[in-house]
Amino acid sequence: MPGLFISFEGGEGSGKTTQIRRLESWFSQRGRAVVVTREPGGSPGAEEIRNLLLTGDPGRWDAVTEALLMFASRRDHVERTIRPALGEGKVVLCDRFADSSVAYQGYGHGLGAEYIRNLWHVAIGDFKPDLTLIFDLPVDVGLKRAGARFANVSAAEDRFERMGSDFHQRLRQGFIDIARENPERCKIIDADSDIDTVSERMISAVSSRLSAQGTG
Amino acid sequence: MPGLFISFEGGEGSGKTTQIRRLESWFSQRGRAVVVTREPGGSPGAEEIRNLLLTGDPGRWDAVTEALLMFASRRDHVERTIRPALGEGKVVLCDRFADSSVAYQGYGHGLGAEYIRNLWHVAIGDFKPDLTLIFDLPVDVGLKRAGARFANVSAAEDRFERMGSDFHQRLRQGFIDIARENPERCKIIDADSDIDTVSERMISAVSSRLSAQGTG
Repeated sequence: MPGLFISFEGGEGSGKTTQIRRLESWFSQRGRAVVVTREPGGSPGAEEIRNLLLTGDPGRWDAVTEALLMFASRRDHVERTIRPALGEGKVVLCDRFADSSVAYQGYGHGLGAEYIRNLWHVAIGDFKPDLTLIFDLPVDVGLKRAGARFANVSAAEDRFERMGSDFHQRLRQGFIDIARENPERCKIIDADSDIDTVSERMISAVSSRLSAQGTG
Repeated sequence: MPGLFISFEGGEGSGKTTQIRRLESWFSQRGRAVVVTREPGGSPGAEEIRNLLLTGDPGRWDAVTEALLMFASRRDHVERTIRPALGEGKVVLCDRFADSSVAYQGYGHGLGAEYIRNLWHVAIGDFKPDLTLIFDLPVDVGLKRAGARFANVSAAEDRFERMGSDFHQRLRQGFIDIARENPERCKIIDADSDIDTVSERMISAVSSRLSAQGTG
């Protein structure tokens, strides 16, 4: 059985974390070994870079330095965690991957998608997920959902969540553009529904992809 | 008076550190404000990235991750330390800069010069030193000189110094190629002489450059 790399993308409050746990169960019930991981981080070295990225003042790094650190941590994560797991035939479920850099630093911070794609190529060549699930919902709904979590999130970790609504609107557009430009790899999941309904949409997207690959 | 950015490059044992102190005095005696800095590091954020780069196991980062971290720290160093100092008309003397990444990761670790130059452009655009002094000497002489320092250098910091002689030969060739490809910016200083003689060669190179720029 070949490995399978699925990334989960989307704005704040889109319910990715819950859906990752559900997809992990779904694959486990089908006898697949699953590795759940997330970015930034996911390997010992990448976790140390994550600490640099998510602690300290919001203006600690400029957008370019932030993008370089993100891809340094991603390189380490890919080489030390993701590729080895795929080589063992495992399913890798990753909360955010390189598309998040395109959306956050490229669209959100205005570096541009091409700039980030160049950096993507420099850092990890043409390595990419087999399937990217983009959990989409209106910005105001997402921020309202995420707001309910603010009390439980450390100040260091909610830096992106506290950005303005314009920022989150650019993010959403970024993910929609990414899906349109990569129709073979990306699937938009309408996340503006209850958890079970969103799960059904996700499982349906994953099942179609597995059938298409002849591994379902 | 415009700012002036001079980088110091060369293999191990080439005497850069001593010559930087001498050039600092030379500029100070001429009434110039001087900032002495070094890479990796040179700004609070870059120093934190330096800690990631220079501690831990030698195989902690692969060559690409290392290059990305180097340029992340360089971006921060340029934006937070070097550009502001140049904007105030200061002379900036920097122990190693981007050419070291071309030589170490490009030639030494085999990523290739073009690969590193692309990353250079991604990280800091066309920003480069006004003058790069490359202290050149035979590899065996440099390693012998550096060897005398080993007892005083922490195990974490002499990782590059312990690489094999082939590695250092590739480094030397890298710096010679860089000088040939950038004759306007780079000046090779024959460092296989006593300290005073090398200082004279350095001051001569700096004076010619200042005259050529009309600021001498």
